Formats: sequence, C-alpha cells, structure tokens
Amino acid sequence: MKPVVGTLAIIGFGLIGSSVARAVRRSNAARRIVACDASAAARRTIRRLGLADRIVSNPADAATGADVVIVCTPMSAFARIARAVGPRLKPGAILTDAGSVKRAAIDHLAPYVPAHAHLVPAHPIAGTENSGPESGFADLFKGRWCIVTPMPRTPKPAVATVEALWRRMGSHVTRMTPQHHDRVLAIVSHVPHLIAYTIVNTASDLESTLRAEVIRYSASGFRDFTRVAASHPIMWRDIFLANKDAVLEMLGRLYEDIALMQKAIRHDEGATLQRLFTKARRIRRSVVAQKQD
Amino acid sequence: MKPVVGTLAIIGFGLIGSSVARAVRRSNAARRIVACDASAAARRTIRRLGLADRIVSNPADAATGADVVIVCTPMSAFARIARAVGPRLKPGAILTDAGSVKRAAIDHLAPYVPAHAHLVPAHPIAGTENSGPESGFADLFKGRWCIVTPMPRTPKPAVATVEALWRRMGSHVTRMTPQHHDRVLAIVSHVPHLIAYTIVNTASDLESTLRAEVIRYSASGFRDFTRVAASHPIMWRDIFLANKDAVLEMLGRLYEDIALMQKAIRHDEGATLQRLFTKARRIRRSVVAQKQD
Repeated sequence: MKPVVGTLAIIGFGLIGSSVARAVRRSNAARRIVACDASAAARRTIRRLGLADRIVSNPADAATGADVVIVCTPMSAFARIARAVGPRLKPGAILTDAGSVKRAAIDHLAPYVPAHAHLVPAHPIAGTENSGPESGFADLFKGRWCIVTPMPRTPKPAVATVEALWRRMGSHVTRMTPQHHDRVLAIVSHVPHLIAYTIVNTASDLESTLRAEVIRYSASGFRDFTRVAASHPIMWRDIFLANKDAVLEMLGRLYEDIALMQKAIRHDEGATLQRLFTKARRIRRSVVAQKQD
Repeated sequence: MKPVVGTLAIIGFGLIGSSVARAVRRSNAARRIVACDASAAARRTIRRLGLADRIVSNPADAATGADVVIVCTPMSAFARIARAVGPRLKPGAILTDAGSVKRAAIDHLAPYVPAHAHLVPAHPIAGTENSGPESGFADLFKGRWCIVTPMPRTPKPAVATVEALWRRMGSHVTRMTPQHHDRVLAIVSHVPHLIAYTIVNTASDLESTLRAEVIRYSASGFRDFTRVAASHPIMWRDIFLANKDAVLEMLGRLYEDIALMQKAIRHDEGATLQRLFTKARRIRRSVVAQKQD
C-alpha cells in the first residue's frame, strides 16, 4: 500500500510516540519518519532500535519540511512545542497530537498554528502502564479507537489524512466534539486512574507490617489497581490539571455512589449490594462483547 | 508422591472448588475426591469433566467418611453447611474452608464442629473474575499465598495437614490471626472490589449516549475495573457483610486520601499530584518484584 503521508515528524518518543513509529513503519503509513525527543538516552534508544529515518533533539528541526507533525509528549509540553513548531510548518502541513484532554490540547496548540497549516487534534484510546521508547509496540492501536476532534473550519482533506493515518495503524476512528471527548474520558479513564493511584497510596500509608502484606497478598484485586497506578506520573499530573472540571464532576458522582455502597454495608443491606454488583457485572459483559477487554 | 489425605470432600464447585479438585488430582494430593454441589447443572459439569470420584448433592453425604472437608461456597451458606456436615465428621476429620473473611468463617463453622474433629480455617489468595465449575484450573493457586488462621487449641497435625494440602497444590502458606487477616484483605481485596463495582455503576448511570461510549472506549483504564467488577455478586455480597468493620475502616481512610487528590486538582497543585503518583508507582514496582503481578 502506498504511504498516507510523506514525512511524519513524531515529537516525544515514549510509549505512544514509539508505538506510532513502529505501527507507521510496519504499515508503510509514511515515507519517512523524523523522531524528536529531548532526552539523549531516548534518542540513543531510538537509534539502537532503528525506529526513525532521522533523529533530532528539537521540535523546530523536526517540523521543518514535515507533512504531518504529531505531538506525543505529556500535555504540559504542548504549548512550548507548538510555539517552536508553528513557524516551521510548511503550507498545507498538519499538526496533530495524541493528548488525553482535547479542549486543553486545542488551547495549547491552536494559537501557534499559522493560517497556511491545519490543526487536527486526535486521541488514541490505548496504552499500557509502561513508559519510554522501549515500551512501545506496533500492535498497541490495533482494534482500539482513535477519537478525532476536528476544528470547525479545518479543511476536510486534512482531517481525512489524520484519520487515514490512524486507520492504517489498525485503529477504528470516530469523531467527537472536544467537550464531549473530555467528559467521556473523565469517567472511563481519568477518574479510574485517580482512584487507582489513591488506593495504592492508602495501602502504602498503613502500619509497616500491614504494608508488606499488602504487597505480598496483592493477587486478590489490588494488583489490578497497582498496574493502573504504574502509569506515567507527569503525563497523569498534566491530564488532571487539564481536565479538572470534568474530573471533579465525575468524582462527585462517584462519591455519591460510594456513599450508597457504604450505607448498604453499614446497615447489612445484602439485597442492595447484590443488586448493585449484578448490575456492574452486566457492564463487564458488554465490554467483553465489544472486544475492548 | 503419596497423597496428603485419603478422602477429600469439596463442597461448592465454583471457581475455587473446581480448581482445588483439578490441583489435587494433578498433584495426587488426595486418594479420592468427593464433589458436592447443590446445582444439578454444576453436578453434570463435574461429571462431564471427570473432576471427582463421587458426586453428591448434599453436604452431609459428602462429609460422611471424609478425612478432610473443604467448604468452597459463598460465605452465606457456611452455617447451613456446617450444621449438616458437623454430625457426620468422623473422629480426627478436618473441616476447612476457602472463605474470604476469617472471623466470620469461624463464627459460622466452629459451633458445629464436634470435639472429636478439627476446624482449620484457610483462605487461598487467588481468583479470577470467572465463576462456575468450568472456570477452574489446576494452576490457580500456583505461586499464590494461602493464609491459614488456626484456632488456639487445634492439634498441630491437623493444621499441618491443611498446610501440606495447599503446598501440594502449589501455594505458599502463611499463618495469621483471623483479625489480622481480615484487615489485610479489607485493603488489598475488599475495598478495591467495592470501588470497582461502584465506578462501573457510576459510569452506567450516565446519560445513555455517554454510557455506550464508556463501553466502547474502555481500553483506557476502565476495563481493568470492569474486570474486577465481573466477580461473583453473591460471594461479594457475603464478603462485605462479613467483613463490615474492617471494610468501613479502610474505606474511611481511602475517603481522606481521595479528598487530598480532589483538593490538589481543584487548586492546580501539580507538584502534589506528581508526588502522589510517583509514590504509587513505587508500590507497583514492589508488587512486580515479588512476582504477584
């Protein structure tokens, strides 16, 4: 199959960036890959693994001559990167990203995109708890969804190019408004991560004898939480700051529901508990049925 | 290797009971397995899979002539089963269980154990989200911990027999007081399950457009919670009722920690979030290092 784009610049080579490189290379989605990472260790790894045709340390160099630039760093770096990249974007070039909060991504990126280039925000719903360029793999996006949140006046061909790129990497593609995206992700991803981080810390604050046992006996529910809580601390800090309103709203709803469970336990209301647990199990079955497990 | 016990009666053939049967058979831990399940469908499955030498529907029949009786049902059935089993226990016979809350297990079982038999409570820390006799497998307990909570006056050989049985099935064995066990399990298992059930229900109560999307985009954290929330509703109802005090105490601690996170988000305290997330990640590394992942 012929490439979807000519030169693709990937800025930030962690789990997502390095998986994009692998998936793009395997599917021949781009003629040429330019890798950009601020870390010298990451650049050495990219070289050793042969993940790019050219490796640079600075976003402006990466963007120069690129047809598509995709920003895969934590969101706190977005504005700085866009400021460097914007002036180098050639006519018709596309700036896209993989950020987890779309309103904030647009706020950070859009001001620096010149009129002759196009911003097409996107978010692949895939990941693992691992970080760094070694942790990526070509199948990360296969069968997963990528949500594109186009700007009202972006030309259709630019949006179509980004969508074609993700489809070539194996993703299903859908569109949403940035606002809707941010609410959906708050409940399916951001609040679950927040709770996982919290519960792991609650356990680690117990008396030291209990703490050792928490780790030893983690096979019974806790380990799933610790896995989620192993995710990248800076990336997640940025997500919570960027999606504050939706996260606080969903957390408020969760609080009310925990209070119901707590009350049912306190008052020995077995029938209420059983009903709530049975309902949750049905949701799991839907997840399995839609092959997102 | 020669068998650890002569006749082993397994009462309740769900995930745990049927895994015990498979592990015992593979390791020749018992000369003879008697299976007992109240469900005719479960008994047909046991027969079809050849998991036992004898299959009965009632606990009294299962216990008659058994050297060791292990109760693997949800905890709400414990007292009823003990009442039926107690009078049939032969001199020197051992009654044990796989219940998740040890103080409650002892409260339900001990009153019915005659002076000539022995109660040795135990809890294998292993499981999956699946239920029923088909869901078991011989490796379920391999490398996992089994916590034995012996009674003060139980003869040492009876405790040693139960420990040898679990070791033969591949488990590490440790001892605790029932009280300590129940606190450890509240934080590593019971509260995480409660939160997982709750968050799945919070998501399912959203407006219907959002709800469909929650399932579709579950690959980003939510699916781990739905997996935990797929666990057996009756078993879990019983656990929360049986371990009420420890669960409510640990839930109270968790509340305080969620409030800290919430406040850090509300006030844009990025450094606090990053510190808390980094701490949680370290705990995950300990879990991985201890091979409980």
